[in-house]
Amino acid sequence: MDYVDATNTAIRGAAPAISHLLSALGRRVAFPPDIPFQAAEARGKEFNATIGQITDGAGRALPGESLAAGLAGLSDEQRNRALLYSPVQGLPDLRESWREWQRRGLAAAGREALPSTLPIVTVGLTHGLSIVADLFTGPKRTVAVPSPFWGNYRQTFGVRRGAPVVTAPSYVDGAFNPGALAQALVNLPEGEPAVAILNLPSNPGGYSPTEAERSQIVDSLVREADRRPLLVICDDAYAGLVYAPGIPSASMFWDLNSKHERLIPVKVDGGTKEFSFFGGRVGFLTFGCEPDGELAQALENKVKGLVRSTVGSPVSTSQILLQSVLESGRAEEEFERVRQRLAERYEILKTSLEEIDSPHLRALPFNSGCFSLLEMSSKVGATAGEVRRLLLDESETGIVSIEPSFLRIAFCSVAKTALPEVVRRIADGVETLARR
Amino acid sequence: MDYVDATNTAIRGAAPAISHLLSALGRRVAFPPDIPFQAAEARGKEFNATIGQITDGAGRALPGESLAAGLAGLSDEQRNRALLYSPVQGLPDLRESWREWQRRGLAAAGREALPSTLPIVTVGLTHGLSIVADLFTGPKRTVAVPSPFWGNYRQTFGVRRGAPVVTAPSYVDGAFNPGALAQALVNLPEGEPAVAILNLPSNPGGYSPTEAERSQIVDSLVREADRRPLLVICDDAYAGLVYAPGIPSASMFWDLNSKHERLIPVKVDGGTKEFSFFGGRVGFLTFGCEPDGELAQALENKVKGLVRSTVGSPVSTSQILLQSVLESGRAEEEFERVRQRLAERYEILKTSLEEIDSPHLRALPFNSGCFSLLEMSSKVGATAGEVRRLLLDESETGIVSIEPSFLRIAFCSVAKTALPEVVRRIADGVETLARR
Repeated sequence: MDYVDATNTAIRGAAPAISHLLSALGRRVAFPPDIPFQAAEARGKEFNATIGQITDGAGRALPGESLAAGLAGLSDEQRNRALLYSPVQGLPDLRESWREWQRRGLAAAGREALPSTLPIVTVGLTHGLSIVADLFTGPKRTVAVPSPFWGNYRQTFGVRRGAPVVTAPSYVDGAFNPGALAQALVNLPEGEPAVAILNLPSNPGGYSPTEAERSQIVDSLVREADRRPLLVICDDAYAGLVYAPGIPSASMFWDLNSKHERLIPVKVDGGTKEFSFFGGRVGFLTFGCEPDGELAQALENKVKGLVRSTVGSPVSTSQILLQSVLESGRAEEEFERVRQRLAERYEILKTSLEEIDSPHLRALPFNSGCFSLLEMSSKVGATAGEVRRLLLDESETGIVSIEPSFLRIAFCSVAKTALPEVVRRIADGVETLARR
Repeated sequence: MDYVDATNTAIRGAAPAISHLLSALGRRVAFPPDIPFQAAEARGKEFNATIGQITDGAGRALPGESLAAGLAGLSDEQRNRALLYSPVQGLPDLRESWREWQRRGLAAAGREALPSTLPIVTVGLTHGLSIVADLFTGPKRTVAVPSPFWGNYRQTFGVRRGAPVVTAPSYVDGAFNPGALAQALVNLPEGEPAVAILNLPSNPGGYSPTEAERSQIVDSLVREADRRPLLVICDDAYAGLVYAPGIPSASMFWDLNSKHERLIPVKVDGGTKEFSFFGGRVGFLTFGCEPDGELAQALENKVKGLVRSTVGSPVSTSQILLQSVLESGRAEEEFERVRQRLAERYEILKTSLEEIDSPHLRALPFNSGCFSLLEMSSKVGATAGEVRRLLLDESETGIVSIEPSFLRIAFCSVAKTALPEVVRRIADGVETLARR
């Protein structure tokens, strides 16, 4: 299949490390010269009878009145675009706007030369992760992630793709461990390609590294890239949601960008948390190379092949809504308002957690994101799941348990006034189980 | 992993044929007792600190004004639901409404006893297909599909899952071939499980079988199920869009339902074409078993595991918009209005195609859906792709080519007044190439 070979050749020529990192599926996939390809070629012709979407014959959607009514806040043109198919790679204006959003602050930091592709639109961040998993992992590709980690990584990389998942602790003696990813890979033979997941601000930890810790992370990953081709997935779900003073808030995608020819950062981000658009499912996948080069083209081609074969095309409706935010001129202000609201909760929660007086429970450091993480002592004699169950059954309080000993508080979905009581109930629950 | 074993045991007990049909991935996947599971348990508690979505602390979304403005037509409650996460299996009221929509007409036909599960929401129909591909196919699972077929089947089943795709002609001597699926499987050893794709109304053919042809399809698939476990994917993208008198419009999912214990129909459908909501990406996956049984639970569990690991959760925004249509009391009327508009185009196109006077081009029979298909004679001495290129370059007309000799007209996106001219240009293009 020529169109697949062409992408493989381009990638091998421009970036041998990426070529080594491709999975078997990654090697055999590319965007086919099929209907969306042919439809793209027919765009603007007098007659366009290529694409199976029902229109009035002049490119306008034919929604029923009830569907149109639900989108009443949009202009006629926006509504029309919201109802029709998106290009497989996403709406072009949204891709441009999101790239600007991702790169805000780079120029002021003297980093505007760092390359990044035009982001490809995915159906939320998990879809971006799952495409990276398809492209770069499989039963023989080790995936490193600090522990505890968001459980869906196990599903997306381990269960679905069969990749071995290796870990090292995110925290050692209650402090963040910047060397975790390199430590997780220490036993992998030199030369064997690997994938690492860097999720900062972290879920479940709510942690973002200090400037010094960032340098340690970069140094350890650059050293790792001396040993092997290393794809680093920057899961930037919570990008910018940083509350503690002095903690840098830019994505580490930029710190890892262009640092080593075998260190390949990929940015996965989206409107989900950054614009509180959870139900919209708009994510983006961005590579750290020049947007117009052959390599970017070939990678985009492969990603489009996977978007096409997993979901057809991304969601137009949500893309139009997100684009309306980005072009409103108020995006930064609206982002900042949410960030400040979460910062208030963070301050209150931090104070409440500092007041916990228990030999059985300690709050791990946090400064950002949506969560805080508590670690139980082994002396409690109960699992995290048992604490969760007790809080549900006897204290009307829902938290997430991560075995064996971690409890996660999602302060992003709790009112600030309620947070002290939530902390009190958790501490009481742990004490109750410790006494039993 | 106990939660995975439990689903496998339930499926093996209730439906050994489905158990035989599961892929290696299908066997190892299930919905984990992870965050969405724990969040579901915490729903309704006084404090719910489980889920990483940013709310006001009382379950209300915190959109910026520009995002909220785009959804101005919805009620406050609808808008709130549209912005927050959907359950992984979809919004409960939409699932109920869609099940009623799918089953309309069954009671009048005396078929209300046919079982069907509560549909699981997917991100458009392709996502449903890709989940079925993940659950039931892989490098050792043959997939049968009549040819020519929608090219994305090759991507979803062949490229992504590595399944061998086998075909037999959809048309023989210009007439529909109801035995195509069984013919495609004739060389597969008896006992070896297989998957078949039944896409009616068809893409690219625009064909729906007559009552007599339906019986032939059912008989041939029942005989095939005597030979092997057979999963039949009813790709009902164009369900109900039938224009010719006397052609049944109900999904063949119902004809295949409960016919043979080794014949397993799965229905893939959605709002994309049925409600002209192309950009919304709301699809559904439905099995032909009782909605409340252990089998339905276990299958739903596996599907949820895959939804979770491919896209996180389906799109709330689009689900709310589709639900607003279904609960408007005008769904049938709005569907019928679009169907009638397409029926007018169908009549005009049919007449134009009958008037083609060329030894090099024949229109294949069509009566439904969004497309009509033309077949070129081998005497033209050019490929379908060359005709497409000529029409683009010299006639300002875009159609889709399917190698070696098929041309597809998407009349769903062309105004009725333009259709005769489109047909004339295609015929002229073919004659031009035949003369060269």
